[in-house]
Amino acid sequence: MTGSPQSSALLGPLLSDPSTSARFTDESAVRALLEFEAALARAQASAGVIPAPAAEAISRAAADLEPDWRRLGAGSAASGHPVAELVAQLRVAAGGAADFVHRGATAQDAVDTALTLRLVPVLEDFDRRLSGLIADLAAKARGHRRTVMAGRTRHQQAVPITLGLKVAGWLLPLVRHRQRLSELRPRVLLVQLGGPAGTLAGLGRDGVRVLEELGKELQLGVPCAPWHTQRDGFAELAGWLAMVSGSLGKIGTDLGLLAQTEVGEVSEGSAGTSSAMPQKCNPVRAESLVALARANAGLVGSMHHPLALAHERGGSEWTLEWLTLPQMVCQTAAGLRLADSAMAELEVDADRMRANMRLSGRGLLAEAASAALAASMPVSEAAALVRRASLRAAHPGGDLIRSLRKMTEAPVAWEAVGDVSAWLGSSDAFINRALATAKA
Amino acid sequence: MTGSPQSSALLGPLLSDPSTSARFTDESAVRALLEFEAALARAQASAGVIPAPAAEAISRAAADLEPDWRRLGAGSAASGHPVAELVAQLRVAAGGAADFVHRGATAQDAVDTALTLRLVPVLEDFDRRLSGLIADLAAKARGHRRTVMAGRTRHQQAVPITLGLKVAGWLLPLVRHRQRLSELRPRVLLVQLGGPAGTLAGLGRDGVRVLEELGKELQLGVPCAPWHTQRDGFAELAGWLAMVSGSLGKIGTDLGLLAQTEVGEVSEGSAGTSSAMPQKCNPVRAESLVALARANAGLVGSMHHPLALAHERGGSEWTLEWLTLPQMVCQTAAGLRLADSAMAELEVDADRMRANMRLSGRGLLAEAASAALAASMPVSEAAALVRRASLRAAHPGGDLIRSLRKMTEAPVAWEAVGDVSAWLGSSDAFINRALATAKA
Amino acid sequence: MTGSPQSSALLGPLLSDPSTSARFTDESAVRALLEFEAALARAQASAGVIPAPAAEAISRAAADLEPDWRRLGAGSAASGHPVAELVAQLRVAAGGAADFVHRGATAQDAVDTALTLRLVPVLEDFDRRLSGLIADLAAKARGHRRTVMAGRTRHQQAVPITLGLKVAGWLLPLVRHRQRLSELRPRVLLVQLGGPAGTLAGLGRDGVRVLEELGKELQLGVPCAPWHTQRDGFAELAGWLAMVSGSLGKIGTDLGLLAQTEVGEVSEGSAGTSSAMPQKCNPVRAESLVALARANAGLVGSMHHPLALAHERGGSEWTLEWLTLPQMVCQTAAGLRLADSAMAELEVDADRMRANMRLSGRGLLAEAASAALAASMPVSEAAALVRRASLRAAHPGGDLIRSLRKMTEAPVAWEAVGDVSAWLGSSDAFINRALATAKA
Amino acid sequence: MTGSPQSSALLGPLLSDPSTSARFTDESAVRALLEFEAALARAQASAGVIPAPAAEAISRAAADLEPDWRRLGAGSAASGHPVAELVAQLRVAAGGAADFVHRGATAQDAVDTALTLRLVPVLEDFDRRLSGLIADLAAKARGHRRTVMAGRTRHQQAVPITLGLKVAGWLLPLVRHRQRLSELRPRVLLVQLGGPAGTLAGLGRDGVRVLEELGKELQLGVPCAPWHTQRDGFAELAGWLAMVSGSLGKIGTDLGLLAQTEVGEVSEGSAGTSSAMPQKCNPVRAESLVALARANAGLVGSMHHPLALAHERGGSEWTLEWLTLPQMVCQTAAGLRLADSAMAELEVDADRMRANMRLSGRGLLAEAASAALAASMPVSEAAALVRRASLRAAHPGGDLIRSLRKMTEAPVAWEAVGDVSAWLGSSDAFINRALATAKA
Repeated sequence: MTGSPQSSALLGPLLSDPSTSARFTDESAVRALLEFEAALARAQASAGVIPAPAAEAISRAAADLEPDWRRLGAGSAASGHPVAELVAQLRVAAGGAADFVHRGATAQDAVDTALTLRLVPVLEDFDRRLSGLIADLAAKARGHRRTVMAGRTRHQQAVPITLGLKVAGWLLPLVRHRQRLSELRPRVLLVQLGGPAGTLAGLGRDGVRVLEELGKELQLGVPCAPWHTQRDGFAELAGWLAMVSGSLGKIGTDLGLLAQTEVGEVSEGSAGTSSAMPQKCNPVRAESLVALARANAGLVGSMHHPLALAHERGGSEWTLEWLTLPQMVCQTAAGLRLADSAMAELEVDADRMRANMRLSGRGLLAEAASAALAASMPVSEAAALVRRASLRAAHPGGDLIRSLRKMTEAPVAWEAVGDVSAWLGSSDAFINRALATAKA
Repeated sequence: MTGSPQSSALLGPLLSDPSTSARFTDESAVRALLEFEAALARAQASAGVIPAPAAEAISRAAADLEPDWRRLGAGSAASGHPVAELVAQLRVAAGGAADFVHRGATAQDAVDTALTLRLVPVLEDFDRRLSGLIADLAAKARGHRRTVMAGRTRHQQAVPITLGLKVAGWLLPLVRHRQRLSELRPRVLLVQLGGPAGTLAGLGRDGVRVLEELGKELQLGVPCAPWHTQRDGFAELAGWLAMVSGSLGKIGTDLGLLAQTEVGEVSEGSAGTSSAMPQKCNPVRAESLVALARANAGLVGSMHHPLALAHERGGSEWTLEWLTLPQMVCQTAAGLRLADSAMAELEVDADRMRANMRLSGRGLLAEAASAALAASMPVSEAAALVRRASLRAAHPGGDLIRSLRKMTEAPVAWEAVGDVSAWLGSSDAFINRALATAKA
Repeated sequence: MTGSPQSSALLGPLLSDPSTSARFTDESAVRALLEFEAALARAQASAGVIPAPAAEAISRAAADLEPDWRRLGAGSAASGHPVAELVAQLRVAAGGAADFVHRGATAQDAVDTALTLRLVPVLEDFDRRLSGLIADLAAKARGHRRTVMAGRTRHQQAVPITLGLKVAGWLLPLVRHRQRLSELRPRVLLVQLGGPAGTLAGLGRDGVRVLEELGKELQLGVPCAPWHTQRDGFAELAGWLAMVSGSLGKIGTDLGLLAQTEVGEVSEGSAGTSSAMPQKCNPVRAESLVALARANAGLVGSMHHPLALAHERGGSEWTLEWLTLPQMVCQTAAGLRLADSAMAELEVDADRMRANMRLSGRGLLAEAASAALAASMPVSEAAALVRRASLRAAHPGGDLIRSLRKMTEAPVAWEAVGDVSAWLGSSDAFINRALATAKA
Repeated sequence: MTGSPQSSALLGPLLSDPSTSARFTDESAVRALLEFEAALARAQASAGVIPAPAAEAISRAAADLEPDWRRLGAGSAASGHPVAELVAQLRVAAGGAADFVHRGATAQDAVDTALTLRLVPVLEDFDRRLSGLIADLAAKARGHRRTVMAGRTRHQQAVPITLGLKVAGWLLPLVRHRQRLSELRPRVLLVQLGGPAGTLAGLGRDGVRVLEELGKELQLGVPCAPWHTQRDGFAELAGWLAMVSGSLGKIGTDLGLLAQTEVGEVSEGSAGTSSAMPQKCNPVRAESLVALARANAGLVGSMHHPLALAHERGGSEWTLEWLTLPQMVCQTAAGLRLADSAMAELEVDADRMRANMRLSGRGLLAEAASAALAASMPVSEAAALVRRASLRAAHPGGDLIRSLRKMTEAPVAWEAVGDVSAWLGSSDAFINRALATAKA
């Protein structure tokens, strides 16, 4: 509809997350590039490579620079990135310290570090949001541990479950995503500094020292070596973003299906209304979560092609990352925002959940009935009997337990067997394990 | 680096195309939505469904409406699209004609038609640009039909070709893309009007008539039936966009490889310079073409998932299209712009092309030498001889023809065989066929 | 589960199509390669390039060759393709005609042509199957034009439709796919012959003539020039395959949702049963159709990357096509087989369709009710009234029409308004248009 | 070319890995399913759920079962998986223990566990191969730490590097991949057991106990809860496989480019030969590595869509995983095999590496020259001088250092500056860090 929800007043409120999008504006990008240049100067001063006053002058100039945007854009068109032109502008601003600006560095050092610098708070924020969502879901899993509903596989009612167990299934991947995030952070949140081809030749023997000082300045990890040619960190991050979006998409899929007119077991509180069709309560957030999951699943492959880049830097792979990663980050953020709000306003109709099992003829008690019958006849005979009864009950108004009662005189406590909340197996145990995991 | 090049002053000049991006701003989107609503009212007036003055009032109101953007955004968040809120604003503006606004229609009618309306001029423009590029390439294919260079397969010099033949290979897919475009346009550039679930029930028996009138009003094709549930047109368009980007990417791949320092056969005139490395003449446009090709190749699958949407409209697939198609359009446009400029400023070093064959020992004349030798010995013996000579010549300073001369006394006109421009086979004929196709 | 359904006795019956898979066995591949070599010899004889008896000898040898598979495999590992080794074996078999085998050709000529040769009958078969499926769907659309059911958007009942209209929506894309197929065939079903780098230098001045003769021999189209470097045809075909799979996936999505226990409007006749849960009637074919659609959507991008290949042949792009296209073809075939069988055995429960609208409180008549009320009150007032009534009716046992009757004394023929088959708008007209299109 | 390299005698030796493919044959799949059933019986016996003799009988029957393949295939077609039919066959074979077969379990329990069981040795093997490859690369990085060559960015010679540094850049991601593998294994290598909808209701209160016993029996991890609905483990694994393939693809890209005729710095020892063009030394393995990287990059997204599956099991997502994951595993294995063999036979031409820098006019010493000149003039003046000299030297036969000598009288030790091995900065330090990491 519009070019990108991230910069759209029209679609942004639906499909973007403002605080995250704000990290990927032109202004933020340039500020982060300048932060790199300033920190580089200070790191070089600390390492004794350039004079301390020059570093101070550069820092000040970077902080105060009002970039000439038109020329930055023209610079991108000419050089394939805006760094050369930005460095030129910073040199002018730095006056006498001009010669010490960007020393020994290359454009990719600035661009990669500037992106990473912005990922730091974004990933912190994502972790916090995941943690909040996990707490929400844990509360729901606990609160609904006795809310019995139909478990459904392949679109069919299968056996009873509880909403608590379903929610526990939403929760557990998020816990693992936090674990994965903590593992990948040290592989991704790294300073980039290699100079033109990763040797830091312009810094003579001081390369490693400057690299380490720069890491300290920016509070980023220090890589084993420059990672111009090693894009696995970003690919891993992309996979993580797609996994988070996918797990939130699962919540969306379930909510959408449960909100169907014929199912009616949940609704989005302040849901999407339709002027022509006031009866509709469109699960807008649920569906957006699915759309965002599919969008990120579609993008993740584009972050893997750059791994096979050419030589010490291929120009196209770098650009492909720019076209892909920020979008994935923003789409993940939108999913986190929507999931949070969908959970906060979720309305559950526990009566309808019970009714739906009854209205469907309690076929989902077939396993329970077979087990009960097997006490007084061979298993295969019990199964055959239940199969016949199921076919008989498979029509509106039918009921498996009623049919069975008519078809056999086997001594079964049908009242108990007919109780959907009596066939929940380890649901509660699994919820407990999930809650323990969520807390840990 | 930033959220999207389309709205970036920083990356836009490199990776976007301003005139195309302008079609996908919020402003353009809303104008197109309003154009739909106005045309719908006029079509309904023509069909006698609503009074003519009401249609006029709505048209005027639509033309003059200054939307409340904040509420539009809030509307999107609530409804999953901005149409309900925009219609509400339009109703207020339409005063007494309010009841006749958006009659019988649904949000998707407006959104799909509004997108299609903007695709019309975009695709016309793309066709024009392709046509211009074809003309450029035809001129180059003609002009370079005698510019002999190494044909390379699997990274190895294989046999001589001409630059003209290579360029003909860039050209021919573009000719087919124009043909495809002319075929797909009537399948894609269709008005959308179906009402809530594709029956146009709100228009009673006048549905088809209004649909046809609306097509006339907007100069769009009239579908057999509403296509809410049939997204193959957009998928086909996405495939076309990716194919165009891919074919331009091929030009980029070739230019990048030919511009390698060690090859040096072409350069981008005003190419990417590097402050630290003045010797570099980065093929920025070439690489951007590759990046855009891969980006669109990565996105095309996301336009296929919506084909399998749910029922009369699935909410997530529609949204996924919004997140994908405009971006693909804009990326294709950027490719067309870059390819045009890369061709305009392309510098060819024909001497270097010849030199590279010689410097590589003229191994690419092996096929020619075998053929010449086969006049005076069995084919297999000739082949074996050439193989031995090739191995002997495979070092800097080696030369296949010189080696062969030493290795055999067979009566071969080595001077002629050693002429790379004598082993071009049907190159010229193929160029002629391509030029004829380009003209047709 | 297993490496590929195409060669699996376990999964093949579910996810492959035997007659199509048979085209992509090793045996078929080698036969097609040999067919190329034989036809090439005959074409060269026709063009006077080689002696006719040699061509006959080669044809016979090719027909009779029992390849040494182990050496073919070793040849692939060494050369990146099996052609060099196969040609060597054919030369031995051709005896005195050995020198005339594969003359002027390159491996890619054989591989591309051999693939294309097998695509010819496959695409004919697909066209036939599509045509059969269209006829089936047309009969169903006609037969169910009065089978009223809920139209559903965003998982909610929206307004009534007919099953006939839904089926017409499945049908129309298939008609377009046939049209697309007829358009793309002449772009794809082309002989490949270019020699080492597309110049046919080994054939001197006879290249074009041999190319044309070869086209005749193999009943394939003759390209403007060799298409080693122009992979848009295969990308277009891949897009077509994914579109077909996607449109069949739409049928699968709808069937799966309609077969839900709580909806129960259709079932697969001989459907998937579950031993533990006899009540389940799993829509196995429906879900497989969705899986195949998503699988092909996931693969289509991989057929676009090769467009941007390097020079006169990039080795990796060619290989990537092999890893992708046959699989897409086979998956499309499996979808066609499953869709055909799902349609043949589809069971429709028209009573349940009507019941589901009633059980859901006839909220999907809101648009109808608003229209009826608007005869006696302002549109906005009517809409507001219906909205209130809808909320009131939105619970099990509620009913929109009953609620409205209590809430207003407006003179409305509620009996008529409450008839879901009276609010179908242009459904029938759209079905007629679709049927006319299907016949054309 | 053929349906799948995994089952092709023709392409397998090029694009598959036999020991890995063997894990994904029908036979292996069924053996693993039977292993699950046997272990389940034993676990239930341990937990006191079924009699120990029954478990023994089932174990024996599973070990001895000769499945009826035709009926297994038919079962897949009917049920969407072969488990129901396999269980039926096992029951017959188990005789009196029939009733205790597959108790409380569902098909997905068997299928997921059977896949996981086969992943265990595969991932162990991958880890071993990565470890071997790392050792190889470490030896090469060490051995080539003084092999100076051109560092190339955006297809241009940039500054000197060493081959050792380049190889260190190949090595480091592999070290991280091993680390990632060790992190993801406990998340992926988990037993699956949930029964029809993840509650293990059929096992009453013994569910968790049986789950734990089953984990012990199969030496798999025990999940917090059944993971039918939580597919993030497989998505993570798919991402890992694509990352490994991508990193190996990087080696392939570099080798292919370095093997270009005009570059000639490396060659594959027993490389791809071409009958018509004996001069060619096709980098077949290098290109296959790139093809496999792109193929897996194209597939990874298809493993993310299943995360958003429906309810307690969606039928299509499960199937989509089967169509994707084994293929990715096999393609990764093929990459590991090819990389290993490419490294073992890699031939390096260190002289050519030096020559290429000289032949290209030593432009890659621009940074070095600027730095040297900056001792006797302002930085900007030095840079401008070098820029002019670079332009002058940018032709065959040109030389930057020679040009500079003529253009300035600044007191520079040109001999030293002109030594490419003197401008390597921290290359050695980075290699050391990489080697230390590789050892750890």
